[in-house]
Amino acid sequence: MMSPSRKTPPKPARLPCPLASSLDIFGDKWSLLVIRDLFFGKKTFGEFQKSPEHIPSNILAERLKRLESTGIIRKSAYQQKPVRYAYLLTEKGEHLGPVMKAMVDWGNKYIPGTYSFSEIMEMMKKNSGSQNE
Amino acid sequence: MMSPSRKTPPKPARLPCPLASSLDIFGDKWSLLVIRDLFFGKKTFGEFQKSPEHIPSNILAERLKRLESTGIIRKSAYQQKPVRYAYLLTEKGEHLGPVMKAMVDWGNKYIPGTYSFSEIMEMMKKNSGSQNE
Repeated sequence: MMSPSRKTPPKPARLPCPLASSLDIFGDKWSLLVIRDLFFGKKTFGEFQKSPEHIPSNILAERLKRLESTGIIRKSAYQQKPVRYAYLLTEKGEHLGPVMKAMVDWGNKYIPGTYSFSEIMEMMKKNSGSQNE
Repeated sequence: MMSPSRKTPPKPARLPCPLASSLDIFGDKWSLLVIRDLFFGKKTFGEFQKSPEHIPSNILAERLKRLESTGIIRKSAYQQKPVRYAYLLTEKGEHLGPVMKAMVDWGNKYIPGTYSFSEIMEMMKKNSGSQNE
């Protein structure tokens, strides 16, 4: 029996490779872009949809459910009738920061014209200011 | 006109986000697992196929082509009649090391039963010994 107080009990890994096992959880482009948006302070379905990559709404809904079920994000209702949810990174999700940063560093090095990490940090600061966080 | 001497000219990014742009290049599970195998010293189509995730051969062929066209790997014929290729990480590919490590660290922290980074380094050492590299 699973404890009802624990939503995401640690499961034994399908494979002992930590990379393969991690990729099973967040290893697709859309999941990683939603996680990026959460780091940027975006919280709602509508905000994720406004990102320049235009994630299709059915994929977005599926990824949010999956990220919640694996304990990367949690949702909380910020409005009733109709109920609307805000999504937030859990501690487990926030610990994906180094994965994001390593990819950003690589992109900066090899893909001309991309924002630098410091420019991104600057944008994040502005974002969180405008969202009253 | 593109210079014929340069296989992978830097292209302007589709989007200025370095994460989204990087994910366009390597952001799928199979590509990342092939890159992992290359870090482990695997070099041939047959060796990649023997990995425990059992990548389907048509996907493997497609990913190898894509990783070559984006300059992450290069191939060289190690046998003629029939021609057989070995695949190697380029410098650009080797610089994905920090991305791999960040994912491994996260997997170790959150997925019970996965190999630790030091166990993996130990296996890599043994591997490269047995392959006379």
